[in-house]
Amino acid sequence: MNYPKGSRKTSNKQQPTNKQPTQFGNRGMTLEKELNETNKFYLETNRAVIHKKPIPIQVVQVDYPKRSAAVIKEAYYQQPSTTDYNGLYRGYYIDFEAKQTNNKTSLPFANIHEHQVKHMKQIDEHGGISFFIIRFKQHNETFLLPIRPFIQVWEKQFEGKRKSIPYEYITKHGYKIPFTLQAKVNYLDIIDLVYFNGGDNNESKRK
Amino acid sequence: MNYPKGSRKTSNKQQPTNKQPTQFGNRGMTLEKELNETNKFYLETNRAVIHKKPIPIQVVQVDYPKRSAAVIKEAYYQQPSTTDYNGLYRGYYIDFEAKQTNNKTSLPFANIHEHQVKHMKQIDEHGGISFFIIRFKQHNETFLLPIRPFIQVWEKQFEGKRKSIPYEYITKHGYKIPFTLQAKVNYLDIIDLVYFNGGDNNESKRK
Repeated sequence: MNYPKGSRKTSNKQQPTNKQPTQFGNRGMTLEKELNETNKFYLETNRAVIHKKPIPIQVVQVDYPKRSAAVIKEAYYQQPSTTDYNGLYRGYYIDFEAKQTNNKTSLPFANIHEHQVKHMKQIDEHGGISFFIIRFKQHNETFLLPIRPFIQVWEKQFEGKRKSIPYEYITKHGYKIPFTLQAKVNYLDIIDLVYFNGGDNNESKRK
Repeated sequence: MNYPKGSRKTSNKQQPTNKQPTQFGNRGMTLEKELNETNKFYLETNRAVIHKKPIPIQVVQVDYPKRSAAVIKEAYYQQPSTTDYNGLYRGYYIDFEAKQTNNKTSLPFANIHEHQVKHMKQIDEHGGISFFIIRFKQHNETFLLPIRPFIQVWEKQFEGKRKSIPYEYITKHGYKIPFTLQAKVNYLDIIDLVYFNGGDNNESKRK
C-alpha cells in the first residue's frame, strides 16, 4: 500500500474542523459510543459495513437453569488478538483501533499491545487500510493516524526510545477527524481524503 | 460482485476431494476447530489474515478481587449481529459463516439468523466476498456456498417454502472444499477457483 503523496500536502487547516458550538453534543460520550453511532449511521446510509468486534471473554463456568437462558457464572476478560473494529468500505478491507487519552502531550503505548500492532502491519501488507483513531480528551480533538507513521515511532521504543507518540507527531502525520451531527467521528471522510484522493473517483490511489 | 461464469462449469468431480485414508485425522474435530487451525496456517504462511470473531457476551456483574484479575460473575450469551469469521485475502474483504449439520439431506435454517444473512448481503453489495462453509457430518463433506445461491433458497421460506437448503442444491451450487493436512478446511483454494479464476493471475473476475 502506498500513501498518495499529493494528499499529504493537505494541512490540517484545510480540513474540516470541529466548530466550538457543535462540540457540546460531543461531551460526555465516550469515543467507543461515538464510533458505534457513526458506524450505525454509515450502515443505515449504506456507505460502509463496519462493526465493532465483541470483547473476547474466556468462559469457565455456565449454569443452565430450567426454562431460562444459560447464565455464565465465571468468566475472564482476554486480551484481544486483533483490533476493535473492522469492515468494508468502497470494496476495501478497513481495520482500526481506537484509543483515547487524558494526556495532553502524547499517546502512551501502555494500552496498545504488540500483537495488535503486528496484526495491523499484516493488514497493511495484504492490501487493507489500517489505522488508529486517537482522541485527546483534553484538546477535544480526534485524529486518524495511518499505521505506517505509527510504526515509525512504535518500533523506536525497542531501541530504548520513548514509549508514547507525541501529540505534535500525530498532528503532523495524522489527520484531524471532523465532527458532524450524524457521524460523530466522521473518519470515512478522512479515508476518502487520504486513501482515495478526496473521494471523487472510485479508484484508490493505493494501487 | 459478479460470479465468473466460466468457473461455474467446474464440476465437483474435477475439484480436489477428500481421500478416505486422510480423513481419519479429521474425525472428532469440530468444524470450528478445523477452521481456526486453517486460518492460523494461512496467517503463518502469510497467505491471508482471517480471524474468528469473539462470541458476543453481555456482562452483567463483575467482581474485582484484590491482587487478581477481574472475574465476571454474571453474563449472558448474545445473538451475533454479524458472522463468525472475517478478514483479508488478496486485497479483498472476506466474510463467512460456518455451519455443520447431522442432517443427511439438507441444512436447516434453524441456526441461521436473519440479521446475519442481511449482513452477508450487505458485504456482497459493497464488493466483499461472502459465503457459507457448510459441513454435512454424516457425509464427511464440507462445501463453500456463495451468498447469492444461498439467498435464492433463503428468501423462498418467506413465501411459505421449505426452511432448509437441500443437500443436492448445495452440491450443485456450492463447491466441495478439499482437505489438506495443514489446511484442514482449505477454503481459500475454492475462493481462488470461484472468485479469482483459478488463482494464477492477481485480477479478480469480480470487477
